[in-house]
Amino acid sequence: MRHFLSTEDWSRDELQSLIDRARAYRESPLGDALKGKSIALLFFNPSLRTRTSFDLGAYQLGGHAIVLDARGSTWPVEFEEGAVMDDGPEEHVKEAARVLSSYVDLIAIRAFPKFEDWTAEREDPLIQAYARHATVPVINMETIVHPCQELAMMMAMQDRMGDVRGKDFLLTWVPHPKPLNTAVANSAILMASKFGMNVRMLVPDEAFALDPRYMGAAERFCADAGTQFSLTTNVKEAYSGADAVYAKSWGALPFYGKWEEEAPLRAKGAGFMIDDAKMAMTNNAVVSHCLPMRRNVKIADSVVDSDAFLGLQEAENRLHVQKALMESLAGAER
Amino acid sequence: MRHFLSTEDWSRDELQSLIDRARAYRESPLGDALKGKSIALLFFNPSLRTRTSFDLGAYQLGGHAIVLDARGSTWPVEFEEGAVMDDGPEEHVKEAARVLSSYVDLIAIRAFPKFEDWTAEREDPLIQAYARHATVPVINMETIVHPCQELAMMMAMQDRMGDVRGKDFLLTWVPHPKPLNTAVANSAILMASKFGMNVRMLVPDEAFALDPRYMGAAERFCADAGTQFSLTTNVKEAYSGADAVYAKSWGALPFYGKWEEEAPLRAKGAGFMIDDAKMAMTNNAVVSHCLPMRRNVKIADSVVDSDAFLGLQEAENRLHVQKALMESLAGAER
Amino acid sequence: MRHFLSTEDWSRDELQSLIDRARAYRESPLGDALKGKSIALLFFNPSLRTRTSFDLGAYQLGGHAIVLDARGSTWPVEFEEGAVMDDGPEEHVKEAARVLSSYVDLIAIRAFPKFEDWTAEREDPLIQAYARHATVPVINMETIVHPCQELAMMMAMQDRMGDVRGKDFLLTWVPHPKPLNTAVANSAILMASKFGMNVRMLVPDEAFALDPRYMGAAERFCADAGTQFSLTTNVKEAYSGADAVYAKSWGALPFYGKWEEEAPLRAKGAGFMIDDAKMAMTNNAVVSHCLPMRRNVKIADSVVDSDAFLGLQEAENRLHVQKALMESLAGAER
Repeated sequence: MRHFLSTEDWSRDELQSLIDRARAYRESPLGDALKGKSIALLFFNPSLRTRTSFDLGAYQLGGHAIVLDARGSTWPVEFEEGAVMDDGPEEHVKEAARVLSSYVDLIAIRAFPKFEDWTAEREDPLIQAYARHATVPVINMETIVHPCQELAMMMAMQDRMGDVRGKDFLLTWVPHPKPLNTAVANSAILMASKFGMNVRMLVPDEAFALDPRYMGAAERFCADAGTQFSLTTNVKEAYSGADAVYAKSWGALPFYGKWEEEAPLRAKGAGFMIDDAKMAMTNNAVVSHCLPMRRNVKIADSVVDSDAFLGLQEAENRLHVQKALMESLAGAER
Repeated sequence: MRHFLSTEDWSRDELQSLIDRARAYRESPLGDALKGKSIALLFFNPSLRTRTSFDLGAYQLGGHAIVLDARGSTWPVEFEEGAVMDDGPEEHVKEAARVLSSYVDLIAIRAFPKFEDWTAEREDPLIQAYARHATVPVINMETIVHPCQELAMMMAMQDRMGDVRGKDFLLTWVPHPKPLNTAVANSAILMASKFGMNVRMLVPDEAFALDPRYMGAAERFCADAGTQFSLTTNVKEAYSGADAVYAKSWGALPFYGKWEEEAPLRAKGAGFMIDDAKMAMTNNAVVSHCLPMRRNVKIADSVVDSDAFLGLQEAENRLHVQKALMESLAGAER
Repeated sequence: MRHFLSTEDWSRDELQSLIDRARAYRESPLGDALKGKSIALLFFNPSLRTRTSFDLGAYQLGGHAIVLDARGSTWPVEFEEGAVMDDGPEEHVKEAARVLSSYVDLIAIRAFPKFEDWTAEREDPLIQAYARHATVPVINMETIVHPCQELAMMMAMQDRMGDVRGKDFLLTWVPHPKPLNTAVANSAILMASKFGMNVRMLVPDEAFALDPRYMGAAERFCADAGTQFSLTTNVKEAYSGADAVYAKSWGALPFYGKWEEEAPLRAKGAGFMIDDAKMAMTNNAVVSHCLPMRRNVKIADSVVDSDAFLGLQEAENRLHVQKALMESLAGAER
């Protein structure tokens, strides 16, 4: 039995197979791969696209999704081994994960970090605990990585660019009023590097470097592929000759939980919105961003509304890649 | 591609066809008109009947409804063109509507006005923006009109009264502790006038006149049909000889957002509850009200529990007419 | 037409038939007993397992569940006959129950007592009102009894113990930080006694006796079966020779709504957690508890993680018994 918690432990060939299968589902959306099967969608954070695309995908394959809003309508859960549960949670993850596994064929979880203590939260404790105790495959619907988004991004880039190997991928930090989760940023560099692209990161300050786990993995994947990985604070250097620009905003990890101290560094990126001038420096690059996306803050209207923008296709692809993924994981006999 | 935002731009024949099809579904509820198809139900306000009847209707036709509670579990949305989205909404309706359109075959929206500024809210900006950017049909589940309720009301009246042309329809304001949305009142006069009834409105004060857009449309429909449209504050005049009495409470538009000033005018309607004495003045009229309905405040128990009351049939009809509507809109190839 | 509000008015043979059918569904989960049929799940309180198991069960039988969260997303409801509804609820249960009945084939309700006035709440007014006005069968998903849990418990015990007649069943109060609903405790003694077991209750103080309605029924069922019913505060006496131990915490009814006064009596049960020492006094008993369950507060890890613990099977059985129940109730023609 295999989980889908991060693309790190899935090979490029396996991921490419999922994308290829997703393309087949885009052409012919209905099927019976999940006939009589079910998936529980546990949301500890809100969702529009993820909830809709998983629920709909299960239906289109003959299956059934159970949407569980874990932000109040269900019980909080204890994760610690041997805990004396005399306050807070009414239930241990051991029971929650096992019982859910006795009902459904797949469990998908969205659980953002709480932005309180990165040392603890970088271990992704909630989904890891579910994965440890569940007896069915667990799918990550975004925790501190967002692997379903990675598949959708790569599918959109390949559709437009063909083979992406050796192409230049820029992940650029962009402005946002609040410090956000690093999940999509982590995922973007994992996927681009695994698929053989040169990966550059543009940040307002080196404090915006991502966790070494993900920077290190991306560097290794680049080394394996013979490509380059780099981090810069220089806008011109970053954009020059890029083939694909991926936008994301996130909070600087050294200031995790003490965000007021991060503000001056964040201010250094005030000019980082993607606009026509920056795009003119690229190699006629495509641009994307996972949705939702603040227009004219992260990316200018003129860029969003141009042919270069792949964000809508990427969002649509979520439906297709997740169907391929559910089929792949639930197809194996329990 | 056609939306169902208001009955104003649907002909009487088209609406009658939907009602006729609804009668067929009442006799034989299952079908496959939505096989493999899906509808997103976006609720910006709570719902019991609307949610149940759309969800169930989709299932009974082989389709699938995705219920999205937009009051907190999903992202707020920006509607303005060119907005610099540096606070509030994380997403523009352009992306929200287009992505949802790439997933589902129909989008249905409930979004009540906020009761703050009628000048802006009478434009129905949220559903209009979705309709502008969606690439699939959009259905109104109640905004400032409630066209699905209209279909259900007319179906119930025809079932009991036969051809309604030339019959006298009374829309009476009834008491309620709070100023309410005018949607169902607007819809009642639109539908009754379009179907050839004489339309009277009984209000406690002329300040309770509805928006000119809807009063004007009803007057035009009456003129086209050779029937009468009138507004009165006289209870006896209103009820005398009526064939159908429809009850609704609403807030007076000139006092929108400053409801304490409306209270004295509202007090003039303190005796407007529908009771046996008023019903005795009618031509053995039927009575209805969209649900929910406060008993013994809007309508006396003796009337609600009499054969004259059509409210339960009208509520049941919601299921049938919405199935006819979904079939009609989703049947067209995208 | 028959409701499933409590096992009190269902015979042992009828309940055994449901359990036997549930075993068939455990072996072969899919079917078409609910093809084209639907169930509304009304939750006035949160749920994980109940919601998942009913929703999934309906799907596996070809039917469709509509989940209605009645804690805010729908209208509050008036129950009193003849009420002048000039504040609070917008709708009377008469309309709510009848309209829902016109849409779906089954209505299931979870509504815990409010812990304010046991004299009123022991009448279970909400579900009784729905049952009175609904024209389709109503299923209890936990109010002041939890009959679906009873079926799941008995199925798990029979699977492990074979015929339970004449075996010794201990319901033990266990510690919990808060005073809880008596529903599962009431249900445990109803079911064990109806199925011919000797029933003992262990409580910290006689103030924790359950409502006379349920204690009395259990005594009658024991008398009918020729078995014993007893209540004790003596741990050793309670555990000695027990064949099955069922754990539950609940609030003492004489202190309902004034829980601070209950605290000293509750403290007498501080040592009532189920642990290895207590289990050693039994006749190699099985142990169970409805989930959720606080580990190391109600039951020690060593017991939960032993073969004696049936809680996971009992939770899984909820799916199976509810499918048998829905099939039984919806199968009858309306």
